[in-house]
Amino acid sequence: MAEFDLIARIRTCAGSDRRDVVLGIGDDAAVLSVEPGMQLVACVDTLNAGVHFPVDTQPSALGWKALAVNLSDLAAMGAQPCWALLSLSLPSAECPSVEEVIAGLTHLARLHGVALVGGDTTRGPLSLTVTALGQVPAGTALVRSGARIGDAIVVTGNLGDAAAGLMLATGQVVAQSHAVSETLRKRLDYPTPRVAAGIAVRGIASASIDVSDGLLADLGHVCAESGVGAAIDLESVPLSAEILSALPRHMAQLLALSGGDDYELCLTVPREHLETALVALRGAGCAPHLVGRVTAEPGVQVLDAAGMDVTPRQRGYEHFS
Amino acid sequence: MAEFDLIARIRTCAGSDRRDVVLGIGDDAAVLSVEPGMQLVACVDTLNAGVHFPVDTQPSALGWKALAVNLSDLAAMGAQPCWALLSLSLPSAECPSVEEVIAGLTHLARLHGVALVGGDTTRGPLSLTVTALGQVPAGTALVRSGARIGDAIVVTGNLGDAAAGLMLATGQVVAQSHAVSETLRKRLDYPTPRVAAGIAVRGIASASIDVSDGLLADLGHVCAESGVGAAIDLESVPLSAEILSALPRHMAQLLALSGGDDYELCLTVPREHLETALVALRGAGCAPHLVGRVTAEPGVQVLDAAGMDVTPRQRGYEHFS
Repeated sequence: MAEFDLIARIRTCAGSDRRDVVLGIGDDAAVLSVEPGMQLVACVDTLNAGVHFPVDTQPSALGWKALAVNLSDLAAMGAQPCWALLSLSLPSAECPSVEEVIAGLTHLARLHGVALVGGDTTRGPLSLTVTALGQVPAGTALVRSGARIGDAIVVTGNLGDAAAGLMLATGQVVAQSHAVSETLRKRLDYPTPRVAAGIAVRGIASASIDVSDGLLADLGHVCAESGVGAAIDLESVPLSAEILSALPRHMAQLLALSGGDDYELCLTVPREHLETALVALRGAGCAPHLVGRVTAEPGVQVLDAAGMDVTPRQRGYEHFS
Repeated sequence: MAEFDLIARIRTCAGSDRRDVVLGIGDDAAVLSVEPGMQLVACVDTLNAGVHFPVDTQPSALGWKALAVNLSDLAAMGAQPCWALLSLSLPSAECPSVEEVIAGLTHLARLHGVALVGGDTTRGPLSLTVTALGQVPAGTALVRSGARIGDAIVVTGNLGDAAAGLMLATGQVVAQSHAVSETLRKRLDYPTPRVAAGIAVRGIASASIDVSDGLLADLGHVCAESGVGAAIDLESVPLSAEILSALPRHMAQLLALSGGDDYELCLTVPREHLETALVALRGAGCAPHLVGRVTAEPGVQVLDAAGMDVTPRQRGYEHFS
């Protein structure tokens, strides 16, 4: 398939009935209408072969995940996703899996009413860069810097599953059942961006981040930007039945704290709004858990049931480390 | 340098006093204010090592060009560039040239008042993906589809220089003077996006595209989207003194028609607005040239002084071809 055939193919899949797309794929740039009273929210994330996904990852998962990690960033801001652009580097356009990559991406896009409005296709090592654009009512974006001492720390779902899925994918562990293996691998390959959850806690949460590098690392960013610290109650960190069936509990807990790629939201919530937040998050389809509290001492501490400091050394994934 | 040090470094360089940046680098996404009555214009382009630039390219040129090709897309839409996001894949963060890459990008950004508001740094083969966001008064974006039979075809400057620069860079030709070589190489490495030109012909030009893949290829896109054809007068295509000193005239002409990377604009203009357009373009700092006319026959034809068809076979650069 030649470059312009590929673009034509993507253009066909990218159809959307959003009326705010004045001009989509096929010109030098997209032209989009931002609603009056709304602010634009913009992010970009790249997935590189061999770095961000195991080599045996399904092509459709590549497309799904490249968009999902960006929708997750918009979710962390409380933004409504609207549009996306895709820059796709491919070793060769002959690769039949290109269409599966696009299908995976456009499937998730449709689920969220996101229009694919532009992009770029180039020759190069396999890599997907998605730019996601969303909108938020002016002044209501959730940020990292709003956590206050005494706030509750809430996560929107189980942690560690994606990291366990990666260990299964790379053969570091073997699951006793195929179903468990499938479930964990799916959490790695087809993460669910918590878009409705982010929107649900606008005006309620004091700070927000998505868990992409690991809870300790990402909560650490919130603490650094907010000038506070955090204490996590190890036994409160939610673990799935699947991770507990595949791994010893202490290992599952370590992955839940330091593993990346879960794409749950980690929120801080003033105590007086905690019940409201939990109800709103359940209404948005998640299973929220209170996992700790914002403290005055800098850094993120993990405490066991007896209140002993059991903070692991490995804080999370970092490129170039 | 670790990932988060690198981001902190970029954050320092990215400073801008744009008041429409509600939240820049350092959160999950940027929050931006689009002016009332304006539409958002968005594009993304990737430069991959070994594909889009010779291996000896200066690091600062990589950063400059990665932004320039995107500002050129915004220019082709008649949009005012406002904000950019950078996704940077690096084999290692130790590489001292990272700072030069960022310096090249932020230098051009400052020239256009563009704020770098977000991005992503990952490990992987050297690659830069820039997302550029601009604004245009609602309904005034220039598009590819507006060319009408009889319109004049105008380019904003000399063509072929960048392709000649690439031939020099790869040793396919040798320039007789160092100054010539420098000038042509600079046209390849540090292209000038014609931002002021695009804005100047809003409401005047009927269609617009930037010359990234070569005049024939890019004008071909305008023709395809507009349902028209084009005739180029070979002798009217502007050539620099430098390209004519480095290459035989027929070779220079071929590069001007089929070489890429010039990032001049190619505009179609209704005859009655031609003089206005030329004055506006000169006022915007370019040297516009009338190079042909929009015709009824599909495709792009090149005619010599005698009116003979001399269309070259090589239409332009295409990935995967």
